[in-house]
Amino acid sequence: MGYTDLDQLAVNTIRILAVDATFKANSGHPGAPMGMAPVAHVLFNKFMSFNPKNPNWLNRDRFVLSNGHGCMLQYALLHLFGYNVTMDDLKSFRQLDSITPGHPEAHDTPGIEVTTGPLGQGFANAVGLAMAQAHTGAVFNKPGYDLVNNYTYCFFGDGCAMEGIASEAASMAGHLKLGNLIAIYDDNHISIDGDTKCAFTEDVTKRFEAYGWHTVWVKDGDHDLEGIEAAINEARKVTDKPSVIRLTTTIGFGSKLQGTGGVHGNPLKADDCESVKQKFGFDPKQSFVVPQQVYDMYHKHAAEGAAKEQAWNQLLEKYATEYKAEHADLVRRLSGKLPEGWEKSLPTYKPSDPAVASRKLSEAVLEKIHDVIPELLSGSADLTGSNNTRWKNAVDFQPPEYGIGEWSGRYIRYGVREHAMAAVMNGLAAYGTVIPAGGTFLNFVSYAAGALRLSALSRVRVIHVATHDSIGLGEDGPTHQPIETLAHFRALPNCMVWRPADGNETSAAYYSAITAKHTPSVLALTRQNLPQLENSTIEAALKGAYPVVEAPNAAVTLISTGSEVSICIEAATYLKEKHNVVARVVSVPCFEIFDAQPKDYRLKVLPDGIPVMSVEALSTMGWERYSHEQFGLNRFGASGPYKEVYKKFEFTPEGISKRALATIDFYKGQPVRSPINRAFEQIL
Amino acid sequence: MGYTDLDQLAVNTIRILAVDATFKANSGHPGAPMGMAPVAHVLFNKFMSFNPKNPNWLNRDRFVLSNGHGCMLQYALLHLFGYNVTMDDLKSFRQLDSITPGHPEAHDTPGIEVTTGPLGQGFANAVGLAMAQAHTGAVFNKPGYDLVNNYTYCFFGDGCAMEGIASEAASMAGHLKLGNLIAIYDDNHISIDGDTKCAFTEDVTKRFEAYGWHTVWVKDGDHDLEGIEAAINEARKVTDKPSVIRLTTTIGFGSKLQGTGGVHGNPLKADDCESVKQKFGFDPKQSFVVPQQVYDMYHKHAAEGAAKEQAWNQLLEKYATEYKAEHADLVRRLSGKLPEGWEKSLPTYKPSDPAVASRKLSEAVLEKIHDVIPELLSGSADLTGSNNTRWKNAVDFQPPEYGIGEWSGRYIRYGVREHAMAAVMNGLAAYGTVIPAGGTFLNFVSYAAGALRLSALSRVRVIHVATHDSIGLGEDGPTHQPIETLAHFRALPNCMVWRPADGNETSAAYYSAITAKHTPSVLALTRQNLPQLENSTIEAALKGAYPVVEAPNAAVTLISTGSEVSICIEAATYLKEKHNVVARVVSVPCFEIFDAQPKDYRLKVLPDGIPVMSVEALSTMGWERYSHEQFGLNRFGASGPYKEVYKKFEFTPEGISKRALATIDFYKGQPVRSPINRAFEQIL
Repeated sequence: MGYTDLDQLAVNTIRILAVDATFKANSGHPGAPMGMAPVAHVLFNKFMSFNPKNPNWLNRDRFVLSNGHGCMLQYALLHLFGYNVTMDDLKSFRQLDSITPGHPEAHDTPGIEVTTGPLGQGFANAVGLAMAQAHTGAVFNKPGYDLVNNYTYCFFGDGCAMEGIASEAASMAGHLKLGNLIAIYDDNHISIDGDTKCAFTEDVTKRFEAYGWHTVWVKDGDHDLEGIEAAINEARKVTDKPSVIRLTTTIGFGSKLQGTGGVHGNPLKADDCESVKQKFGFDPKQSFVVPQQVYDMYHKHAAEGAAKEQAWNQLLEKYATEYKAEHADLVRRLSGKLPEGWEKSLPTYKPSDPAVASRKLSEAVLEKIHDVIPELLSGSADLTGSNNTRWKNAVDFQPPEYGIGEWSGRYIRYGVREHAMAAVMNGLAAYGTVIPAGGTFLNFVSYAAGALRLSALSRVRVIHVATHDSIGLGEDGPTHQPIETLAHFRALPNCMVWRPADGNETSAAYYSAITAKHTPSVLALTRQNLPQLENSTIEAALKGAYPVVEAPNAAVTLISTGSEVSICIEAATYLKEKHNVVARVVSVPCFEIFDAQPKDYRLKVLPDGIPVMSVEALSTMGWERYSHEQFGLNRFGASGPYKEVYKKFEFTPEGISKRALATIDFYKGQPVRSPINRAFEQIL
Repeated sequence: MGYTDLDQLAVNTIRILAVDATFKANSGHPGAPMGMAPVAHVLFNKFMSFNPKNPNWLNRDRFVLSNGHGCMLQYALLHLFGYNVTMDDLKSFRQLDSITPGHPEAHDTPGIEVTTGPLGQGFANAVGLAMAQAHTGAVFNKPGYDLVNNYTYCFFGDGCAMEGIASEAASMAGHLKLGNLIAIYDDNHISIDGDTKCAFTEDVTKRFEAYGWHTVWVKDGDHDLEGIEAAINEARKVTDKPSVIRLTTTIGFGSKLQGTGGVHGNPLKADDCESVKQKFGFDPKQSFVVPQQVYDMYHKHAAEGAAKEQAWNQLLEKYATEYKAEHADLVRRLSGKLPEGWEKSLPTYKPSDPAVASRKLSEAVLEKIHDVIPELLSGSADLTGSNNTRWKNAVDFQPPEYGIGEWSGRYIRYGVREHAMAAVMNGLAAYGTVIPAGGTFLNFVSYAAGALRLSALSRVRVIHVATHDSIGLGEDGPTHQPIETLAHFRALPNCMVWRPADGNETSAAYYSAITAKHTPSVLALTRQNLPQLENSTIEAALKGAYPVVEAPNAAVTLISTGSEVSICIEAATYLKEKHNVVARVVSVPCFEIFDAQPKDYRLKVLPDGIPVMSVEALSTMGWERYSHEQFGLNRFGASGPYKEVYKKFEFTPEGISKRALATIDFYKGQPVRSPINRAFEQIL
């Protein structure tokens, strides 16, 4: 309360920085920053705790700009408060290799928590950040030690409000009663197509009420700083529900085009830039100007944040004496280190062990490692019994008042919300104290493609437990049988796709996923049983590919993944017995890891002189990189008992052998170069 | 009203058929059919108009089982009413090559309107079916000729209600005031993880009210047939809003496990089968039994439906005399034929024509063909001005009371709802009278992957206008720059991905997409300008690939798509001038169509003896099928002016030439086999 001209000056400084940066870039979105500058000022300067000198302080309040196209708002704030975002960085907005790209990217810019822009994602990330706070607080806070109690604030616009992913996440947040989450809805009635009345006339507030949120409406978001402050205060007091503040604003406030679509995604014209500066008392001929008193005010708030962190650090030191184990655990988690020797808990298997579905092998891993990796949070999008993602005696992550779990619980019931699950996991991972794993059928990870892409781009460690990974799911049929799915995720940069063939490979997949601090993983797992292979070891699998059947003078290499590896081994026997043909078999549980091996190793796995045929009961796309000929499924599957479906599509020793013989024949008398040998390297 | 024991017998017959079929298959979901049998009986027997002997009658009521796992409900109904689904078909439930697969597939089973199972999809399809009815009625109905006035009914469960796609579609349906849409929500409190209280505690009814729906609650959906009938009657009377009937039911009603998750996705145990039969007065020792009086009742209703169709046909004949042109248009649309000579409207270009972005070339096509193809409905997910999907003078599809469009309008404002857009388009296409095209950025077609997959599987013609198709979008940066996207959709069976290089290829892409009656298409289009190529023609492009620069004695073939083709042509010049090396250039705007050409043509395009290098500014995955070496982008892009981004990643004549030389060098002295030559054929 007690807002002065200085506050208004700060608000207008933010607006004009957005005008200047988008004008200079001749690209970008000035409208949202100009409309949301007042709420940003109040939120950042009155409420948020953060220390710009240490953007990684655990107990900072989190801020997510889900309408990421308005990122000049965020960049301006980061600069003004003293994060390492300089005026030159603002001048390089949307330029090559700047830290101020067209949408906020978490890995490059200090103070950006999550990568946003694709609409709806940030909102769901915020739900994940708030969940991580609730969990971490429940695990580590003790009487007198309220170590983890930050809020998560999220701005979102009409675009995010229309996206299904945000609806899923909002429903989930309401169920979870996340009182630490405050979302501010920029109700400006404008999206790219113009007035929202052309497509979006629902009652957003009522919808959030239906989800179980507390709602507040600030009717004049352009001027009413007191009203904004009161609304945020009210929201903070409601601790048993997330809050949404509907903030009615004028997009592009101050521009000649304010309140229209014209100011959404295009810089202001030169005369409009001058006009808005004049209107706000700035020199129309100058650009990128920040009045010193604005810097002073914001740096004062930043200094208060730094002091808070200092006090927090002292509290943490005291905590160390009283709660030694908890302190050590927290400090370890924040350092990014895994518990010493955790990997010894990974199960290993002998060939004589029984055949088990890899979804069950995955369950066995979780059962073994959950105790030694306390930061591991599992969950499923309503397929717990099918994904086998829940260890015995797991406690659900739930508000305690339901009587079915605890905030400290480590099993998350995501509901049938695959896209939100993936984005919530991005938020969980971004918080810094947990490692999320979430299950659904592999086919429905595709629902989450938008979020998984951002896991990869923003370099967070999330684990997708993707069961029922092929036609091997059988009766559910082609609507549920992935074909294109692995090609899709293998083509995604910085995403590891594992398709383990047995128990040791499943353990390797988890080892890889858990140690990949900056990479998401998709673990493609079977519904059907798989035999334990000769020659498989965790170490071998961790090279991405290795021979499971080695044979000197082999006429062909069969390269395969997951459930088809053991069929290839049978095919090798069949070829020897029926055709006196020698075949090697290579298992390649993870392309991405194999690609990262030294060339001499890769050439040992796929040597020159022997034609390679790939076998995988999914699209052949991408397999040409590792093989000369490809046997796969470039059509949809079929509904029926899985063994019959495999037979129909000839994924049998006979079917594989027939094609292996054709491959050998085709390359007879030809020099055969390993597919590992290439004319030039890829740009990475 | 006036329900008798016969009605109850019919309800129980449906329930027991579901019990028997899932038991025999030892697989499937008895719970939903047992719970929803009462509402299915009332809806099908009291309200729905259809003729089982002609499942394609235009004015039939549409039924969508969005909770498609409950498909034994639908198969039982189809059988009982006399569709060509026999008792043997029911006995073959979930068996290989049956017409009763694990989830309903529209293309194989008479009476199935859309392919469902992946949750939320059917709900959005129903919105599309209802929109198609509203549009078609507005176009063709005349005073005294209410030719098109069917309802669309949709069943959905908690799973669908949780999915974001259904939220998007429900918001859209509410905005559009679709009074012809009645959705019935199976409120049984059970999903796979058990009681919905573990993840889904929102107020669903209130949420639908927030979207603008009319809502009714039937509290005893297990027994209250009168209440169900009254609710449907009420819903039908509300013509300015879609209606949702919340129907509280007991999942697996009659089973010992009724009301629990145990009956959701597993067949009943043998003793439970017997018990439920006894409970319902059936012989516990017999299976697949239908009392004759149940057949009689349902066949009577079917005969009434047939009579309605006959009356309708007579009305149509009369219509023919009074509204000749409209009649001819409607009959043509229903025949699946396009207007004679429509393709003459496709624009063609000469090399001297100016460079234009392919999104603008796409707009030029729409501008030209919208008049000659009246069934074409365009639209965008809130990117109209960027996708260029709207022809001048287009009328929006809107309820007239908004004053911004008409039901007969042909431009759909989908809002920022990519997933719903794709699924709504599936519904629109399934209706049979329109061809939908919808725009978003290529990167965000990924949000719609779940729906596009079902377009392909269910073989419907929908057109995705996917603009901003690469790093060429520039400043928006890597959050918006597709990398893996084309590999994904190229790996999807029965999906045509076009990436045209200029105007003629863009026209070819539309020709292909519009004539592909059973295949969806993704048109990947640039933001940036493209020159008109020498040697490009619509005819050549319609072969999927063709040489744009032919040269005898070429040392290398450069194969490319879209915006990179003209850079390859520049590279060919550069290679000649700087290195005296001759290069051919092949444009391959559509893999899928090229694959379908005769082998001799394909070998002419990619002949033996010349190494091939691909150039595309996206993932190289899949390009190995057409090339020996690949130049692409297997990492995320960058934010900056697009020419600088292209330069950074070396998609320049120099960058291409450097790699072409390496390719030539690598294959020097080696026999080079065309990638078209393969050892064996794929299973299709």
